[in-house]
Amino acid sequence: MNNELQQIEAHIEQNRDRWVAELARLCAQPSVSAQNFGIQECAELVKTMLEEQGFAAEVMPSGGHPVVYGEGNGRSAKTLLFYLHYDVQPPEPLELWESPPFELTQRGNKVYARGVSDDKGHIIARLAALAAVREVLGELPCNVKFIIEGEEEVGSPNMPGFVEQHQEKLAADACIWEFGSVDFDGRPTQSLGMRGICFTELSVKTAVRDAHSGLGGSIFPNAAWRLTWALSTLKDQNERILIPGFYDNVVGPSERDLALLDATPDDSAELKASFQLDGYLRGLEGGLEWKKTAVFEPTCTICGLTSGYQGAGVKTVLPAEARAKVDFRLVPDQSPAEVVAKLRAHLDAQGFSDVEVKLLGGGRPAKVDPDDPFVQIAVETATAVYGEDPVVEPLIGGSGPNYPFIHVLGLPLVSAGIGYPGSQVHAPNENVDLDYFVKGIKHTAHIIYRFGNE
Amino acid sequence: MNNELQQIEAHIEQNRDRWVAELARLCAQPSVSAQNFGIQECAELVKTMLEEQGFAAEVMPSGGHPVVYGEGNGRSAKTLLFYLHYDVQPPEPLELWESPPFELTQRGNKVYARGVSDDKGHIIARLAALAAVREVLGELPCNVKFIIEGEEEVGSPNMPGFVEQHQEKLAADACIWEFGSVDFDGRPTQSLGMRGICFTELSVKTAVRDAHSGLGGSIFPNAAWRLTWALSTLKDQNERILIPGFYDNVVGPSERDLALLDATPDDSAELKASFQLDGYLRGLEGGLEWKKTAVFEPTCTICGLTSGYQGAGVKTVLPAEARAKVDFRLVPDQSPAEVVAKLRAHLDAQGFSDVEVKLLGGGRPAKVDPDDPFVQIAVETATAVYGEDPVVEPLIGGSGPNYPFIHVLGLPLVSAGIGYPGSQVHAPNENVDLDYFVKGIKHTAHIIYRFGNE
Repeated sequence: MNNELQQIEAHIEQNRDRWVAELARLCAQPSVSAQNFGIQECAELVKTMLEEQGFAAEVMPSGGHPVVYGEGNGRSAKTLLFYLHYDVQPPEPLELWESPPFELTQRGNKVYARGVSDDKGHIIARLAALAAVREVLGELPCNVKFIIEGEEEVGSPNMPGFVEQHQEKLAADACIWEFGSVDFDGRPTQSLGMRGICFTELSVKTAVRDAHSGLGGSIFPNAAWRLTWALSTLKDQNERILIPGFYDNVVGPSERDLALLDATPDDSAELKASFQLDGYLRGLEGGLEWKKTAVFEPTCTICGLTSGYQGAGVKTVLPAEARAKVDFRLVPDQSPAEVVAKLRAHLDAQGFSDVEVKLLGGGRPAKVDPDDPFVQIAVETATAVYGEDPVVEPLIGGSGPNYPFIHVLGLPLVSAGIGYPGSQVHAPNENVDLDYFVKGIKHTAHIIYRFGNE
Repeated sequence: MNNELQQIEAHIEQNRDRWVAELARLCAQPSVSAQNFGIQECAELVKTMLEEQGFAAEVMPSGGHPVVYGEGNGRSAKTLLFYLHYDVQPPEPLELWESPPFELTQRGNKVYARGVSDDKGHIIARLAALAAVREVLGELPCNVKFIIEGEEEVGSPNMPGFVEQHQEKLAADACIWEFGSVDFDGRPTQSLGMRGICFTELSVKTAVRDAHSGLGGSIFPNAAWRLTWALSTLKDQNERILIPGFYDNVVGPSERDLALLDATPDDSAELKASFQLDGYLRGLEGGLEWKKTAVFEPTCTICGLTSGYQGAGVKTVLPAEARAKVDFRLVPDQSPAEVVAKLRAHLDAQGFSDVEVKLLGGGRPAKVDPDDPFVQIAVETATAVYGEDPVVEPLIGGSGPNYPFIHVLGLPLVSAGIGYPGSQVHAPNENVDLDYFVKGIKHTAHIIYRFGNE
């Protein structure tokens, strides 16, 4: 590590408490997107915090909650974009919090608050890294841009359109994504892509009200049966999705993807024990085939079923309405619009025109070339900061709005951050371990330094 | 109508307000079996009311809520048994009641309270009829017995065992069932039988907690899918129940049953309009085939589905648990025990040993010979009281504990009562029309008089 990087790391360590204080300030401002609670105020606060660090900032309309845009100039012509979000998950259930969710509280080496890790801790980590680099070098080594949205926790419905509309303004050479985490062994991870998602609601209404099952059982259409039969045509018991054309655009993993996947740790045994599963689907028992299936297969998951009487005991009712939430995880090159169209056509062909389909949220899958030089920077700097090589995941099972950044803005995109498996993201007592907070800031600073100087 | 019957009818009319007051007294005592609310107190009150009318009465254990047994002697050697129940449905939702549910309130010609029709009004109607007959004749024309249970609204789980155990005590020659009603045209109805019921809960548990759908979608078993697939093997889209042997014991309607059914009014158009159905199942459009299917076919009805996330919008969860309520209506000579055994064997054979089956309530189907002399008495006296021939239904779609009365005690069993289609039984603002109250008492009195004197 050269002298400048040593100074940068020292700066980060010396200023830790200053950035924890900034994190407390940001967490004290609620910003629950699902409840539209504190959103405008938080956007204004984030703008102010960017300006205090010397960046030009503005609150921009997105069609939904506003986006905070920021920018600052540096020595080189290259531009690094930070994608982040200022919105948080609802804090409920409140009774499970050990300290108030919107009041940063330190216990031991951890600080607790809603959003402290996801994603306010990452906003602060980027600012801390940039401040350290600028202080040591006297200026930033590259231009930087921020896009900090307010709808990530509700599926980023306006992000693709926003990026499309502001391509020029957002033009950059590389992007650091909103998150980053170590794994259960404390090893850093580098995620290169995410599956897409097509989240639908299927609903049936067969009558204006429920009937007595003794009256209608033999002669009335039953919404719960219609839904059950319709769902059973979507996927067979071998997990094969039966919608015609569903797999047409699936591009399987490359040899390189498989090699990367093979090198990731096998946590199948821990996962099976943690959820107390009898076994995995398709007879899988860990290994490369298990890893590959877990992320490179598209899915059709029933996330919820609701119809008729759901309480204890007996109620002899014939339901007039039934609904299912059905979530498709998509792999390259599937798209939500394509899946909804094929699902609609399939239901019609199977005689289920009475089953309504609503698209409640969607995003395309996207992944970055593992051999992109920016990915190499993220990997090598992780090794430098954490003292061991990161786990490189060619694709992860979850979803996020990375598609427009990769495919519209054309950016390589890496993860770097402060998370750890105990962060309790989306749950009560969300927290940040201050050691990983410092490491995440250092990793971000190393990437900025290397990116600007190469 | 002879002089004695004229005097009996006059007595009933003159004492109407006295029996409405008794009805108010009985309705003021809550007796919600599902909530075990006021049950013991109501049993004691019913015992007291029987004693006040000169009957010996006792509160007997049943294994669940107590049964009130009563008896009184009459002139002939013949014995008439009254089956009734003192328990009521829960009054909820309370906000929809226009007057307090446990306070009898008169508005116009109607009296409102929970249980006023089902079944407290019928308890009072029997007492009123017996009092009128005894007052006019100086004694009862036959022996009478009462069995007034406290669990009818929760499926009478202990009635078959109670009847079995007390066969000698309950010995009788005929039985008047708990209910009776006119139809939409004000015509009396005579029901000769009821379908049986086998009410089950199917449940699946695949993990100790829900998972993120991005994590487990491709590799974790999903309880909602397991349940959906299991259900879809139970019945095809043509309404054919696919459980092997399910139809083995089905005895279809006799020629006599079909002739009776053919003579009943066809209310298919009104029912379709009332529920705003697009159409009936199997392309039925009223007529004898529609009537026959409605009651002489066994059913498999999904009464409820519950799994995972059921709120608004998106939640990407993979459910660890799923449950369905499934109600089978049975026709002679099917039985709940047989259906549960065949269902279990079917699920095991189809690979669904992970789907647990619980029997939540059951009762066998049973019907009475339309040509039994006691049925003729009920029909002819209805004609005398209501001024028109009753609609005779060989079987109705609903279920009740009539099997042990018909097949263990060996009794012919008729309906006679105070109901009308606007009674709002089981719903808020349950009520009795006082004209039908008086007619139901008269019909009961006519049956007692004819039965004792023939």
